[in-house]
Amino acid sequence: MAALENGARGVVPVATPGEAYAWRAAAEPVLLGGERGAKRIPGFDLGNSPLEYVRERVAGKLIVLTTTNGTLAFRRVLAAGPEGGQGPELIAACLRNAQAAARHLWQRAVSSDRGVLVVCAGTNGWFSAEDAYCASVLLDCLAACGPLEPGDGARAVMRLGALAAPPLAELSSSRHGQTLLRLGFAADMDYCAQISVSETVPRFNAGVLVAAGGPYDTGSPAGVPSVDGESVAGEPAPAGPA
Amino acid sequence: MAALENGARGVVPVATPGEAYAWRAAAEPVLLGGERGAKRIPGFDLGNSPLEYVRERVAGKLIVLTTTNGTLAFRRVLAAGPEGGQGPELIAACLRNAQAAARHLWQRAVSSDRGVLVVCAGTNGWFSAEDAYCASVLLDCLAACGPLEPGDGARAVMRLGALAAPPLAELSSSRHGQTLLRLGFAADMDYCAQISVSETVPRFNAGVLVAAGGPYDTGSPAGVPSVDGESVAGEPAPAGPA
Repeated sequence: MAALENGARGVVPVATPGEAYAWRAAAEPVLLGGERGAKRIPGFDLGNSPLEYVRERVAGKLIVLTTTNGTLAFRRVLAAGPEGGQGPELIAACLRNAQAAARHLWQRAVSSDRGVLVVCAGTNGWFSAEDAYCASVLLDCLAACGPLEPGDGARAVMRLGALAAPPLAELSSSRHGQTLLRLGFAADMDYCAQISVSETVPRFNAGVLVAAGGPYDTGSPAGVPSVDGESVAGEPAPAGPA
Repeated sequence: MAALENGARGVVPVATPGEAYAWRAAAEPVLLGGERGAKRIPGFDLGNSPLEYVRERVAGKLIVLTTTNGTLAFRRVLAAGPEGGQGPELIAACLRNAQAAARHLWQRAVSSDRGVLVVCAGTNGWFSAEDAYCASVLLDCLAACGPLEPGDGARAVMRLGALAAPPLAELSSSRHGQTLLRLGFAADMDYCAQISVSETVPRFNAGVLVAAGGPYDTGSPAGVPSVDGESVAGEPAPAGPA
């Protein structure tokens, strides 16, 4: 999200470092970003710290991003969407854009008569306290837009949210937060713990995350990135850009 | 669990009604039990109501059971277990046996130096409030056995448990509870809402759930039921008993 906030043209989430290298090998200039085990990948231009994605580096650029959990979650949601026709709109939300994301979702849900599905990426397949906390903040923002009919999961998350400590304490007390602090990413946590300070809502536009309503948003549906599907959970694949 | 409490020899969870029919077609006499959409399956001996599994019907019998959510959860855990060698011990817990299940798990976890993984079956792939509530009661019982190191998910569930209404109210307010009440299963809910009234701990013994420490428990590891794996999420398969 930091990339789009700072003027990046778009962010392409890919599953593996191999796919990212393949994008760089293609004609168009791209920046490679991402992490494995919270650390920058060899040969990559950027890591996973949002503080690296400053305007001077990312403005006007296409970023190819591979992270351990978020990318996979995007892929799975896209793959699970209805086939053919107009797929669901898929956006990215975090604490920093919670209110803007909620307003966007609410507007789309009302105008399309569709529900909202909140998907937590988790950490290596496990429940993540910071995800649930972020979901609770998003759901509170949605509830402020109008009447909600939450399912069991949403209700549970909202109950948990009502018990939450202040944002930074909540993030720091999670398992993953503890890991990040140990690795020296305290400044990232400060940045990520700021609630509703950003109006940027990343949305999928034909396989690329762009700022909703921004200059690179053509209004296309979500789409599935045109890379080899086999590579999502497996080995690096020699897949190229769209 | 009601079946094992009332003297059934064992319970074989199968994925589809087709697999259950195949078991009946085999030599050994079995009772078929289960539901689809909370209703008894055509030609089956028993539905999904624990109140049907009375001693007169089930004592000494082998029950072949197919339910929408629980069976699939068992299969997935078994399939995800370490290959070869001694697999994890797999038990079934609910409100009725929470304390006995926790004592059993604690003993095994301490003696094997392994952790405990609590898996909620969910409802048709969705988070279930009654599952999370049951997990919270089980975790509280585990915490009463000795010091726990809960992960993010366990901590969240325990926090939710601390906010829970009395058991029957908690079950009734869940989405699935509402469905059951609408279908006339209020007596089942009363039965299921009783906490720690049973000492029966169903454990997997070579693919069959038996009462742990009971006459049919041979101490074998969990094992994977010897049915066609392809049928787990797919069509009825002509698979036979072990």
